[in-house]
Amino acid sequence: MDIKEIKNPDFLDDLSIDELKDLSKEIREFIIDRVSKNGGHLSGNLGVVELTIALHKYFKGYKFIFDVGHQCYTHKILTGRAKDFDKLRTHNGLAGFTLREESTYDSWDVAHASTSLAAQAGFLTSNIDTISIIGDGALTGGEAIEALEYLSTLDKKAIIILNDNTFSISKNVGFIRKMLDHLRSSRGYNTLSKKYGKNSFLKSIKNGIKRLFYKPTVFDAMGFKYYGPIDGHNFKDLFKYFKYVDSQNRPVVLHVVTKKGKGYKFAEEDEIGAWHCVSPFSKESGLPLKEDNENVFYSEVVSEYLSKFYDKHNNLKVVMPAMTYSSNMVELKEKMKGDFIDTGITEEFATSFSASLAMAGNYTVLPIYSSFLQRAYDQIHQDVSLQNIHLVIVVDKAGLVSSNGKTHQGIYDISYLSTIPNLKIVAPRDMREVYEMLDFALLKYSGPIAIHIPNQKTRFIPNLEIESSDIEDLTWTKVNNVINPKAIVISYSSMIDYIKDDMKELDVEVYNARFIKPLDSNSLKEIAKLGQKIVVVEEAPGETSLYSYINNFYRNNSINVDLLSFSFPLDYIDIGSVEELRSDYKMDKKSIKERIKELL
Amino acid sequence: MDIKEIKNPDFLDDLSIDELKDLSKEIREFIIDRVSKNGGHLSGNLGVVELTIALHKYFKGYKFIFDVGHQCYTHKILTGRAKDFDKLRTHNGLAGFTLREESTYDSWDVAHASTSLAAQAGFLTSNIDTISIIGDGALTGGEAIEALEYLSTLDKKAIIILNDNTFSISKNVGFIRKMLDHLRSSRGYNTLSKKYGKNSFLKSIKNGIKRLFYKPTVFDAMGFKYYGPIDGHNFKDLFKYFKYVDSQNRPVVLHVVTKKGKGYKFAEEDEIGAWHCVSPFSKESGLPLKEDNENVFYSEVVSEYLSKFYDKHNNLKVVMPAMTYSSNMVELKEKMKGDFIDTGITEEFATSFSASLAMAGNYTVLPIYSSFLQRAYDQIHQDVSLQNIHLVIVVDKAGLVSSNGKTHQGIYDISYLSTIPNLKIVAPRDMREVYEMLDFALLKYSGPIAIHIPNQKTRFIPNLEIESSDIEDLTWTKVNNVINPKAIVISYSSMIDYIKDDMKELDVEVYNARFIKPLDSNSLKEIAKLGQKIVVVEEAPGETSLYSYINNFYRNNSINVDLLSFSFPLDYIDIGSVEELRSDYKMDKKSIKERIKELL
Repeated sequence: MDIKEIKNPDFLDDLSIDELKDLSKEIREFIIDRVSKNGGHLSGNLGVVELTIALHKYFKGYKFIFDVGHQCYTHKILTGRAKDFDKLRTHNGLAGFTLREESTYDSWDVAHASTSLAAQAGFLTSNIDTISIIGDGALTGGEAIEALEYLSTLDKKAIIILNDNTFSISKNVGFIRKMLDHLRSSRGYNTLSKKYGKNSFLKSIKNGIKRLFYKPTVFDAMGFKYYGPIDGHNFKDLFKYFKYVDSQNRPVVLHVVTKKGKGYKFAEEDEIGAWHCVSPFSKESGLPLKEDNENVFYSEVVSEYLSKFYDKHNNLKVVMPAMTYSSNMVELKEKMKGDFIDTGITEEFATSFSASLAMAGNYTVLPIYSSFLQRAYDQIHQDVSLQNIHLVIVVDKAGLVSSNGKTHQGIYDISYLSTIPNLKIVAPRDMREVYEMLDFALLKYSGPIAIHIPNQKTRFIPNLEIESSDIEDLTWTKVNNVINPKAIVISYSSMIDYIKDDMKELDVEVYNARFIKPLDSNSLKEIAKLGQKIVVVEEAPGETSLYSYINNFYRNNSINVDLLSFSFPLDYIDIGSVEELRSDYKMDKKSIKERIKELL
Repeated sequence: MDIKEIKNPDFLDDLSIDELKDLSKEIREFIIDRVSKNGGHLSGNLGVVELTIALHKYFKGYKFIFDVGHQCYTHKILTGRAKDFDKLRTHNGLAGFTLREESTYDSWDVAHASTSLAAQAGFLTSNIDTISIIGDGALTGGEAIEALEYLSTLDKKAIIILNDNTFSISKNVGFIRKMLDHLRSSRGYNTLSKKYGKNSFLKSIKNGIKRLFYKPTVFDAMGFKYYGPIDGHNFKDLFKYFKYVDSQNRPVVLHVVTKKGKGYKFAEEDEIGAWHCVSPFSKESGLPLKEDNENVFYSEVVSEYLSKFYDKHNNLKVVMPAMTYSSNMVELKEKMKGDFIDTGITEEFATSFSASLAMAGNYTVLPIYSSFLQRAYDQIHQDVSLQNIHLVIVVDKAGLVSSNGKTHQGIYDISYLSTIPNLKIVAPRDMREVYEMLDFALLKYSGPIAIHIPNQKTRFIPNLEIESSDIEDLTWTKVNNVINPKAIVISYSSMIDYIKDDMKELDVEVYNARFIKPLDSNSLKEIAKLGQKIVVVEEAPGETSLYSYINNFYRNNSINVDLLSFSFPLDYIDIGSVEELRSDYKMDKKSIKERIKELL
């Protein structure tokens, strides 16, 4: 069959097991093909093909809540969206996560982990049949366990699919008796721990949470009926157990073991998470389609700096909630061993934990995505800033984020972090300033500080040394050194190098506002004296970001200026490449140049 | 002995068990006496007297992390602070929570729940002997369980004291064999569930989490050695088990059962949490020292409104993370039964859950303290606002908060909520406007909305009816109706009635900015036309609150105005009565009047 012709899952009614297997194969090939062209989440999606087909065939009319939503491709294909995969994760195209505006089959707009059970809880409480599908990784998140506490008390059918897709588990699924209603407790533990080895702390953490949930007694004790583990690629098993769980009028956990990356060799063999979410690649070689040796991700620079810093200071700790690979820290983790602590998806714990590590005298660095750091807002406010802890928060994937859409945009961090007392906020412009800001944050400052690290590449600068910076607190810099400038632009982060040459052409001075909180009041006064129009250019909602603080500064100091904001609205920003999104909001190079020209 | 003479816990070395018992009695009397005068956390503190004495005697030199910190009075007494209890929770006086600046014996500035285990994790990882003391309530919080995942992996001594102080448990401790190393799993469960009854959902939730943690197999499975439950008022038992846990070089949970309110009849008999944190009271009668029949808490008004609303609309759900009593909703809960869902301390879950309840078609109201709502920042951002859900968030205990100090101030919510797209923010001035805003939020608006509810009293207005409001979106109101005003004050919430008469005397108009996000642009234009000085008066940091948005508005619209901010700094605000704190920042009636007068 042509899967692009699928309108809805009803056709599954008539398919035999063999036909479902054929369908799985086609879907898998389709996903590999489309992701190889557009990039996207690969391993997780390949793991749940059979599971998703089986769910749609058996549980008709149910709402399905896919935790994180990054494993929803088969769901999208079965609900009539295969034809849109040519535009997967592109501007105005198909989202990589579930999105209600795309389809009535999508029940929850999602991409932050560990919320599926809470969503399910609300629907079940409202008597709407709902099944959640949650991975073993997302179960470590506190909100998921809070939700289990509630779900366990429901006096009705409540089906949780625990999608267990770690390598160790899926490799060994053959060794674990299938169709077992209950793992015996000691056996569950021993069988699992044997496969893990001892070499990794993360494995140990995962082991801990696994041990918690593998115990049927635990689920039972909480009020769940536990079934499994079963093979998530075996339709017969899936339907058999679906029948069991469907017959229960109580909360049930069905533990399904799936193989991440199934059907694509490179992804199956991936041990570090490299195939979790990928850029376009060659299906044959597995290599990325584009190579770029001139530029480097800002996060790679952070990683390189920390590696050098660790050579000099062995009391450095890096606390990382689960994003080691995508934060470009795999090598750093290997080097730092126990001093690099991957805590799993636990932003709240990771932040308070970092605060106490720092209080105990460690140089402590906490890298978290800009968008996920929102999870730790209270901990930054209360545990870090109120206690005035010397913690360096690396706000990774800040600014515009391509492909992932509105759940991942990193344009809000300066806004929400600026509402927290005591916390300093800095925004390095390039590789050199990443070094300088880390020098400053680790060695010259002793309070809480957040470093805004863009989700982009920057020009590679060779031979930088750590601890060689003479940067002083608060100071901004002039970038263009224009004599008698016709206007002043104040900007920061990756935007500086993006616009500086165009501005120079227009005789416009650019100030690099690398210290955002507090502001550099001397520079602001100096700027005002130039008597020209001042434009704050930022990849953030100006209303609640730098423009707003500068506006307050001039007002509070009764300084008259002609001040304007070029920025993004306080809104959710959809999918697109960074350039497309900039263009949508007239924040691309060309538009900025034109808008500035109009002012001159 | 005179406990005011205690300098540090060293004197405990020489005391016999009988002397420790005498000391406990004295401390208990002392606490009851001081709390009856100044108010404070009573029940929890009375529960841990023996436990705290025993910890300080046995585990000398350890850091103790008291979760939430509201049970630290005995700890403060033993570490030389009894003499300061006359100023407990008063301006520049002794804090009700642990505070490092007060004593080197305090290791963590705290008051938000569920962080103790994370703090302990950081200290233990840094090889500092640390014991955490966490209640059964705080264990429901996701961050605590995230921390257990980490602690369980430590290959060293890690002692967690599980302070189990619910009524049911402490009443029945005699029936459970003491000195038992392990509760048998079925027994643990059955013994507990028998005592709870079935009438309350919260009990059911607590039961769930209890079932999770009472199972020794669970702690064992996670890598903990579990001891208990033991009687937390029996020194012999405590020391005996301290020796056991001290001998382990691994993570250990010691389950200690304590009696909340022990030693004070009214507190012991409390079934609804009325004696958790109290105002000054008569020791003899248990009645509050001050009666006030003229005024009513804003939160009581919310509760009354919701009760009336529920009479008309049975598809109302109220989701309440654990603060039923102090949010004045005990009666509402009894009336609404299953439609009032107390989820325990789970702000993250409660918020996503509320989003899905609302999405499923329920009128859904989520009351959370201003300060605790910070825990749900990401869920409001992603699950509520990004999905544009019709959820009414009641931001309780907003504005200045007396007695509890910097961890509880509710002056930040407008700042941090304003950084979230889609979310409307409103701030009712008095009882009538609470009704009107709830009318608006529930019946006239269909998106996410936060209602700023001050932690104060307001004049009681009889005979208000729900659904009788003709309030329109966005509009502000003129409060004083001064002809030819000499200046304009823009304010909101409880501040309006606090200053309006003084302003009238000065011929100053007051605008009630009851819609904060979005702003009322018509009123702002009208105000500008008056050509007078404009002062934004707010119980919030003006730099990131209404003043800042108004400043942006006038700048963006190129309207020249003379605008000033009377507000609080973006800082942590210490202990004091509301009036004392206002006075500290020149935001009391008198200062405001003088400051305005100077401008005229």
